[in-house]
Amino acid sequence: MTASLAAGPSCPVPLVSNDRVQLGHGSGGKMSAALLRDRFLVHLDNPVLAALGDAAVVPVEAGEIAISTDTFVVSPIEFPGGTIGSLAVHGTLNDLALMGARPRYLTAGFILEEGLPFDILDRVVADMARAARAANVAVVTGDTKVVERGKADGLYVNTTGIGVLDPTLKPLPDAVRPGDVLIVSGPLAQHGMAIMAAREGLAFEAEITSDSACLVPLVDLLRGEIGASVRAMRDPTRGGMASALNEIASASGVGVRLDEAALLIPDPVAAACEMLGLDPLYVANEGVLAAFVSPGRAADVLARLRSHPLGANARIAGAAVGDHPRMVVLHTKLGSRRVVDMLPGDQLPRIC
Amino acid sequence: MTASLAAGPSCPVPLVSNDRVQLGHGSGGKMSAALLRDRFLVHLDNPVLAALGDAAVVPVEAGEIAISTDTFVVSPIEFPGGTIGSLAVHGTLNDLALMGARPRYLTAGFILEEGLPFDILDRVVADMARAARAANVAVVTGDTKVVERGKADGLYVNTTGIGVLDPTLKPLPDAVRPGDVLIVSGPLAQHGMAIMAAREGLAFEAEITSDSACLVPLVDLLRGEIGASVRAMRDPTRGGMASALNEIASASGVGVRLDEAALLIPDPVAAACEMLGLDPLYVANEGVLAAFVSPGRAADVLARLRSHPLGANARIAGAAVGDHPRMVVLHTKLGSRRVVDMLPGDQLPRIC
Repeated sequence: MTASLAAGPSCPVPLVSNDRVQLGHGSGGKMSAALLRDRFLVHLDNPVLAALGDAAVVPVEAGEIAISTDTFVVSPIEFPGGTIGSLAVHGTLNDLALMGARPRYLTAGFILEEGLPFDILDRVVADMARAARAANVAVVTGDTKVVERGKADGLYVNTTGIGVLDPTLKPLPDAVRPGDVLIVSGPLAQHGMAIMAAREGLAFEAEITSDSACLVPLVDLLRGEIGASVRAMRDPTRGGMASALNEIASASGVGVRLDEAALLIPDPVAAACEMLGLDPLYVANEGVLAAFVSPGRAADVLARLRSHPLGANARIAGAAVGDHPRMVVLHTKLGSRRVVDMLPGDQLPRIC
Repeated sequence: MTASLAAGPSCPVPLVSNDRVQLGHGSGGKMSAALLRDRFLVHLDNPVLAALGDAAVVPVEAGEIAISTDTFVVSPIEFPGGTIGSLAVHGTLNDLALMGARPRYLTAGFILEEGLPFDILDRVVADMARAARAANVAVVTGDTKVVERGKADGLYVNTTGIGVLDPTLKPLPDAVRPGDVLIVSGPLAQHGMAIMAAREGLAFEAEITSDSACLVPLVDLLRGEIGASVRAMRDPTRGGMASALNEIASASGVGVRLDEAALLIPDPVAAACEMLGLDPLYVANEGVLAAFVSPGRAADVLARLRSHPLGANARIAGAAVGDHPRMVVLHTKLGSRRVVDMLPGDQLPRIC
């Protein structure tokens, strides 16, 4: 800690720290303005945000917009593969994209804990800015509050996203019909196990890295003429693939067959799940797309997804069926079947 | 506490509570779905929210939209005149309205602390729903996270609002010119002192009630032909009237003269400020509008504001001046003058 107010020779103890968040930074006064300038605008700068109004003013075309809000409380706030900053951008942009929308604007509302070191805050905000820039979306307005030590856990952040609906791609959770093919874009359970390993300080043979990624470029490959064949899409985050498929099965009134042999679970992730007694189907993903596609176009959708690095491991992993409506059934590698229900509570808290 | 899981005779201790928030409610599983249904949808129900997609889909006209985001960490979460729920609605709608926008949609992102009693959560969400209904704005999408005991302070909530810009009313902080008249719509410092009194358990002669209110109806009176005469508007929340006026003075490059004799500060509020050594000019308001208006229309604007209960005590409280640019000067009742600067830090933390 160093002194930010000049401390005379008779006052050898620093009056206030200038390397950590203080309660005064949440006051709406000069310290708030300095925090905004030095910790946020340096990273997130753009003309709309820089106007610093109580609201951002941005153009939209007539039509439908999609609005998504997510609050992130992940612990720890830095982990292999990302930080709470990039996770918050990816999470909200993915929610918009998987509704078929083209993300346009983001907001960021921070709750900072008194005492949070500025170097951690800087890394989180820079990571948020990088993720937003990569997705070509601007953080157009924000808010910062500070709470006393112990009243938060480093920092929490809410991101709200606004996107413009695309008439060529309008997936709906209740639009799936028996025969539709389930395509999963990549390996499962990486995000949740990366957080778990980082939180518990577990050392596995290989470091597990979060799959946190912006799915917008992958979704963009499904726009246009092929879009009509995409019946439903989800990113299986909190609650994992099991919860996402149950939600779609329930909304569409169909059964879902899930083929275990087709699911890709990286070896270190599978080993970590086994060691901790966790089922990877319930572990959060932050860069995986699950889509139900009309059977005639499934090969085409698969080829498009595989053309992008994020979808290089895409595969057909099951189908919607007329049997066992509203139920997800796993066909195991050993040939047995088991119902994959939603969990009542959580395997892993504070994963996002 | 009562048991929600059937506890057999050999297990007399309830396994889990069903009258408080538990970590499992943040899991994305069945408990999350039940929380959403029983604690949120019952109050906030509307067709867009009920669709429960990862994003809300709503129509907009072509043009400009205003987006505002605010996170609320007020302590205590219930206080005379409101709760964190209504405050979050009013705060965000006011930010939109004071930019001239007509608020259309709200999102709500909750962080709940494990152990929060459901009866408190119910009151907060019901209060949020009432405030939104009164403003004719729907909460179209939301998110709920749960953190462990001690990692939050009851609950925090982010509200993000989207409004449609009105071409007849486009106030800007940098549009004020010397000679413009400052109008203040009501008494000052009530919100901050109500929170302070509730937090500290202070008993004053009369209970101090927050002024938390939706300013949209008041702003609506300034639309149309008269709107062009409204140069700048602000609701002086965190940092109080002093900070709001300094921001406008700075953005417009004008001086501001503030007439103490014209400012209304209710007696119990003034007494509480004096007792605690606080300057009411820096205390937060949540239902006050400050506007700079072209001099020729000031009487007309004043008459319109006074026609509404929220503006019954509106008065001319100063003016923009060519002298002392970027500086706010208070002309006291005793005839002296003093500079009203922005505070460095906070008088009152966690006020909104």
